Amino acid sequence: MTFSAADHAAMARALQLAALGLNTTSPNPRVGCVLVRDGITVGEGWHRRAGEAHAEIHALRQAGAAAQGATAYVTLEPCSHFGRTPPCADALIDAGVARVVAAMEDPNPLVAGRGMARLRAAGIVTEHGLLENDAREMNIGFVARMTRGRPWLRLKAAASLDGKTALQNGVSQWITGPEARRDGHAWRARACAVLTGIGTVKEDDPQLTVRDVPCERQPLRILIDARLDVSPTARILQGEPILIATASEDSARHAGLSAAGHRLIVLPNPAGKVDLPRLMNELGALGLNEIHAEAGFKLNGSLLREGCVDELLLYMAPMLVGDAAHGLFNLAALTKLEDATRLELRDVRQVGRDIRVVARLPRA
Amino acid sequence: MTFSAADHAAMARALQLAALGLNTTSPNPRVGCVLVRDGITVGEGWHRRAGEAHAEIHALRQAGAAAQGATAYVTLEPCSHFGRTPPCADALIDAGVARVVAAMEDPNPLVAGRGMARLRAAGIVTEHGLLENDAREMNIGFVARMTRGRPWLRLKAAASLDGKTALQNGVSQWITGPEARRDGHAWRARACAVLTGIGTVKEDDPQLTVRDVPCERQPLRILIDARLDVSPTARILQGEPILIATASEDSARHAGLSAAGHRLIVLPNPAGKVDLPRLMNELGALGLNEIHAEAGFKLNGSLLREGCVDELLLYMAPMLVGDAAHGLFNLAALTKLEDATRLELRDVRQVGRDIRVVARLPRA
Repeated sequence: MTFSAADHAAMARALQLAALGLNTTSPNPRVGCVLVRDGITVGEGWHRRAGEAHAEIHALRQAGAAAQGATAYVTLEPCSHFGRTPPCADALIDAGVARVVAAMEDPNPLVAGRGMARLRAAGIVTEHGLLENDAREMNIGFVARMTRGRPWLRLKAAASLDGKTALQNGVSQWITGPEARRDGHAWRARACAVLTGIGTVKEDDPQLTVRDVPCERQPLRILIDARLDVSPTARILQGEPILIATASEDSARHAGLSAAGHRLIVLPNPAGKVDLPRLMNELGALGLNEIHAEAGFKLNGSLLREGCVDELLLYMAPMLVGDAAHGLFNLAALTKLEDATRLELRDVRQVGRDIRVVARLPRA
Repeated sequence: MTFSAADHAAMARALQLAALGLNTTSPNPRVGCVLVRDGITVGEGWHRRAGEAHAEIHALRQAGAAAQGATAYVTLEPCSHFGRTPPCADALIDAGVARVVAAMEDPNPLVAGRGMARLRAAGIVTEHGLLENDAREMNIGFVARMTRGRPWLRLKAAASLDGKTALQNGVSQWITGPEARRDGHAWRARACAVLTGIGTVKEDDPQLTVRDVPCERQPLRILIDARLDVSPTARILQGEPILIATASEDSARHAGLSAAGHRLIVLPNPAGKVDLPRLMNELGALGLNEIHAEAGFKLNGSLLREGCVDELLLYMAPMLVGDAAHGLFNLAALTKLEDATRLELRDVRQVGRDIRVVARLPRA
């Protein structure tokens, strides 16, 4: 399949539109659509929120009669099934679109290709695979959930240049500067949920909300608390109800938290901790695409060791605090470098006065 | 002082030429010169090696009679004294140059401005301060030595993303990839000397030479060895003689090393270690501009604690090795983040599959 420069430009624009829904489409994917006829863009649209119109419908409405004979560029294969809205494939057929180019097929193996087949059956030319990598990245959590049942887990951490998260006496707040903190909140905002552990709640008492950037909807907050040690006055329990994953069956504690509106999932593992891999499956079943984890040395280490981490978002402040301070991850001591966890760098840049690294764990 | 776009372009070219001497001018500064008459470049030159012609002389030779009435752009104020070569100011006067623009004045406070004054006395228009920051960076070690008597010390280290240099059992070799190693050798090549400690010699037995990049002259090798524990078969003692800084007066050991051609400096401090700040002054007196240090946890920590480090060159491999592994720097435990050593980021980039960070220590 070869695509023209005009095809590339139109799909790049559709991806730009899709990105406008970065923080709001959950549990749906972010999707953009551009309609082009005779080299002129006649309609543009993007999906904003689950239950509202899909990208294609917005673009068709804008184009009106001009959609007749147009090419539709969509960042994801149009749906062919009735969900909360009627199928987009039918709307494209009804509007008389001549050609549909999708960046990627539906990642759900059960329906992949059906939307395109429905369009072809109506005589529409269909193609896919244009800027597919960008489209996959745009919906990396949705793709993860559709293909493996688990969300994409991004672990955020902040350390000094010598890999320390806190001093020996626990002092850790504001290791990075304001630009890095704002950037961290932007990553929180795009996530479906922000996850932390009881250790961090006890030490730092975070709100775990998105504050430093505009945010239309707050991500769900998830607390890993094996023994339900969380204090009723903890800031994470204020505001919107949260999801608590625990290994405890203590009915009095359950009752108190449930009465305050919080949701509990009991997932013990043989060690009396929360079974993290099973929790990831549960979070997938809840329709969560991207999880943003901000935890401490212990939970960070457990998430890594138990294969729950897909991506590391690491801020490094250009400071040295010395070897006595606390490290980033509680991982087993290695004897061979071959056994180290090797990551793939995705992005390295300066954010304010700090360094930001995005790196991926090897595929499980 | 305002300079035209043509002035900027000519000085940028002179800096490019100066950079051609990056690895060879020591102990002299790297200098480039461009001669422009009526908008046409009539001569270019750069200094290659101490004892050979300065940049201005090369450019004047190339220009010949065309130097008459030209503007000379030099990255450093022309010299006005007889050194190993006659003064460049006189040569510019003799050639009939009409205007001299220097990026910066001579950093040696004893002679700063003298070259320009000599030119002015001969009726030549003189200006300076064009691309001065770039010119200072080009000769950061020379400037350091001229203004404070000590060389610029760049500390190179390699670590995992979680700040570890070696596993608990000491395994550390090849933590970074081939591109980072080659890049590290390019930094070695520009240095006047490469410095390490006896701990690294015992553990890794390095040659400490420049190998992975073209190199006309090998930097001097310096070993910090307080007790003269170095084995006669250590690879660092092979090839060119080295400089050994020690706290030991053991005459038998001195005799053995001196007989092999090595030079010893005895600089004990009250703790029986090598007095590192005094060593830095000695290295400045020897005409060394840039020192490239590659050492281990202990010497790295000592150099930092004793205020000898100007710049950190840190390679980070995208891998996690866990908290039990060895850290980067032996620094005292802190109780307040305010006491941490804060650095200024100069450059952050990906080199091969690794990350490279250049950061500067606060000015002493």
